[in-house]
Amino acid sequence: MDKRHFDVELDQLREKLVMMASKVENLINYSIEAIRKRDATVAEAALAMDKEIDRMEIEIEEAAISLMARHQPAAGDLRFLVGAIKINNDLERIGDHGVNIAQSAALLASVPEIKVLADIPWMAGLAVSMLKDSLDSFISGDPEKAREVCSRDDQVDELKDQILRVVLTFMMENPNFISGGMTLILVARNLERIADLATDISEEAIYIYQGKVIKHGAEKQSEEGSVNR
Amino acid sequence: MDKRHFDVELDQLREKLVMMASKVENLINYSIEAIRKRDATVAEAALAMDKEIDRMEIEIEEAAISLMARHQPAAGDLRFLVGAIKINNDLERIGDHGVNIAQSAALLASVPEIKVLADIPWMAGLAVSMLKDSLDSFISGDPEKAREVCSRDDQVDELKDQILRVVLTFMMENPNFISGGMTLILVARNLERIADLATDISEEAIYIYQGKVIKHGAEKQSEEGSVNR
Repeated sequence: MDKRHFDVELDQLREKLVMMASKVENLINYSIEAIRKRDATVAEAALAMDKEIDRMEIEIEEAAISLMARHQPAAGDLRFLVGAIKINNDLERIGDHGVNIAQSAALLASVPEIKVLADIPWMAGLAVSMLKDSLDSFISGDPEKAREVCSRDDQVDELKDQILRVVLTFMMENPNFISGGMTLILVARNLERIADLATDISEEAIYIYQGKVIKHGAEKQSEEGSVNR
Repeated sequence: MDKRHFDVELDQLREKLVMMASKVENLINYSIEAIRKRDATVAEAALAMDKEIDRMEIEIEEAAISLMARHQPAAGDLRFLVGAIKINNDLERIGDHGVNIAQSAALLASVPEIKVLADIPWMAGLAVSMLKDSLDSFISGDPEKAREVCSRDDQVDELKDQILRVVLTFMMENPNFISGGMTLILVARNLERIADLATDISEEAIYIYQGKVIKHGAEKQSEEGSVNR
C-alpha cells in the first residue's frame, strides 16, 4: 500500500471517530434532556443509540488494526493508531455512562422534583464540551487545547461535590428522598466519569503529539518519538 | 529483529503484565483489609502503590509499541499486542478503583460499624478472583476460562444490589447513617467497576483467541484472523 492510500484510510478513520463521538454526545444530551423533562420513556431509545455506538467501536478498532497490519507504519503513525484504539474504547465507555443516565432518568421521573436537578444539565454541559474538545484536540493535533481540557476537570469535580452535599442535606431532612437522592448522585457520578474519560482522551492526545505523559499528575518525556504534524 | 528475539520480548511483556496485575490485586486486598480493620491510615500507602502501577503502565505500553515498530508483527501477534495495551490500561483503571476504596476506608473508620460491612470483603474476593482469572486467560490463551469469568459478573452485580438495598434501609431508619452509608455504596460501586473491567479483559481475551466479539451481549465473528496458540 502506498503512502497516499495510507493517508486516505487514516483520514477515513479520523472521520469515523468524529462521527462516533458525535453519536456519544447525542446520547448524553438525550439522556440529560430526559432528566430535565422528567421523561420516563427514554431508556429504550438510549439503549438503541448505544448499540449503534458499540457497532462503530468494533468497526473502528478493526480498521485501525487492519491499517497497522497492511501498512506497517513508523513510530509516529503507529502511536496515533494505538491512541485511536484507546480513545475509541473510551468513547464506547462514555456511551455506557450515557445509558446509565437514561436509566436513572426513568427512575427520577417518579420522584418529587427538587432544585438540585438544575445543576445536572449544567454539569452535563461541561462534561459534553470536554468530550467534544478532547476529541478535537486528538483529531486536529492540538496538544494545547488538550491541556486546556484537562484543566477543566476540576470544575466538574467541584460541581459534583456540590451536588453531593446538597443532595445529602436533602436526604437527611427528608428520608423519603433517600432513594431519589441516591439516583441523582449516581447521575452526577456518571457525568464525573464522562469528564474523567474526556481527560484521558486529552492526555492521550498530549502523549501522541508531545511525547509527554501528563497523566497521573506527573509530566514525563517519552522515550519514543512523538508525532509531528 | 529475528522471530526468536521477538518471542523473548513478547514473553517479557507477558511477565510484566502478570507482575502489574499482582500489584493491582495487592492494592485492592490492602484497601479492603483497611475497611475490615477500620484502619484510617491506609490512603497514603495505597497512593504509593498506585504510583508504582502507573509507572508500570507507561513502561508496558512503550514496550508494546516499540515491539510493534521494530518487529512489524503479522495480524495475530499485532492483535495480541493491541490487546495487551488495552488490558494494561484496564489494569491501571482497576488500580484507581483500589485507591478510591482506600480513601473510603479512611472515611468509614469513623462511622458506627454495621453488619453489611461483612458483604464488602466477600464482594471484593469475587472481584479479585475475576481479575486474576481474566488476566490468566489472556496470558495463557484460554478463551474458555475467559468465558467463565464473564459469567461470574452477574454474581457481583447481584451482591452490589443486595448491599445497596440493605444500606438504603439502614439510611432510612437512621439518618445519621446517611453519610457513612453513601461511602459504603461507593465502595460497592468501585468493586462492581473492578468486576466490569475484569469482564472487559476476558472479552478481549476471547476476541484475541477466538476472533469473536462477545461484548455488548452480541457474539460476532471477527473478519480479521484470531491468534492460534
